[in-house]
Amino acid sequence: MTAPPTPDLLTLDRAAQDLLFRAARTATAFTAEPVDDAQVEAIHELVRHGPTALNAQPLRVLLLRSAAARERLLPYVSAGNREKTAGAPLVAVLAADVDWHERLPRVFPHQPQARDWFAGDPAGREAQARFNAALQIGYLVVGVRAAGLAAGPMAGFDAAGVEREFFPDGRHRVLLLMNIGRPAGSPRWERLPRLDYAEVVRTL
Amino acid sequence: MTAPPTPDLLTLDRAAQDLLFRAARTATAFTAEPVDDAQVEAIHELVRHGPTALNAQPLRVLLLRSAAARERLLPYVSAGNREKTAGAPLVAVLAADVDWHERLPRVFPHQPQARDWFAGDPAGREAQARFNAALQIGYLVVGVRAAGLAAGPMAGFDAAGVEREFFPDGRHRVLLLMNIGRPAGSPRWERLPRLDYAEVVRTL
Repeated sequence: MTAPPTPDLLTLDRAAQDLLFRAARTATAFTAEPVDDAQVEAIHELVRHGPTALNAQPLRVLLLRSAAARERLLPYVSAGNREKTAGAPLVAVLAADVDWHERLPRVFPHQPQARDWFAGDPAGREAQARFNAALQIGYLVVGVRAAGLAAGPMAGFDAAGVEREFFPDGRHRVLLLMNIGRPAGSPRWERLPRLDYAEVVRTL
Repeated sequence: MTAPPTPDLLTLDRAAQDLLFRAARTATAFTAEPVDDAQVEAIHELVRHGPTALNAQPLRVLLLRSAAARERLLPYVSAGNREKTAGAPLVAVLAADVDWHERLPRVFPHQPQARDWFAGDPAGREAQARFNAALQIGYLVVGVRAAGLAAGPMAGFDAAGVEREFFPDGRHRVLLLMNIGRPAGSPRWERLPRLDYAEVVRTL
């Protein structure tokens, strides 16, 4: 075991490190305190600055706030995730828009022809949509925590079913569900083990 | 145009918001100041806390520091990315380990049988590796900025070639290259347009 690196190698202050990473935990139970649209807008306004390839920004967020909308989701959620999803103040369905190239002339004006490169390559577009939207979900997790809230990402659901139910246009791929709110009580588990530097990083 | 949300809806202080998102920019040119291993270790020690499905942590980072290692990479980098890659203090090759399930008994001890679920599903493992490693790259971008450095992610390269050259074991998929260092001069472009809230977020 090596001693942990001293935090003063980072510019970000310790309170922010704790808020975003060290003390933050995935939540599985939430208080009844609502998460209002202004909070989500503030999170978006922060994390939208995060970089994506060609500035494509393929992530789309569907917020399920009403009881009726929540009811439509639950049949597609795995049994182990249903109770916490029903009880969260807000559930975000996180999807990638595979037709992100249509916005390129506006979001990447330096290469206006880039839209045409991708128009005939739906498989390449889908791969890029999935990758860049996942990057953006990483930024979103950080943003939710920056708002003093906890995220509860869930991969256990029927993605094809959620797409049929909520994205009948066929141009969206649902990547993740995320409960958002203030955590109730202590996390269910101790923090799980993280890989050591030597397991993750090699240098040549 | 709506006025931007007031930052005081966020818990994260404004200086940290600026460091990580608002003032941070993708860098295309860097000073000669080195990025040492202790800095990378501090970044890792922060961002490894970010959540992944089943705590799988599939991201692997290969740092190219020596001139010889850099030379091996350049032939696989698109012409437009070659000069900035050659000039960066450090280049990280970011890859996903498709055999992440082997570590599940240690990193997700609550479901020791999870390793076996995935052992016979290489396609599912690859999809999860790509998604979760991309999430971790999102955390890594934030972590590089938390260290006061700039990231220069690059998608323009021959992934199959980089895999053959640096990951001959066949169990890694290279997702992104990332130059890391202190930015030299001003960004080449004004910040590119970001999508508005109403384009990204819907509520039901």
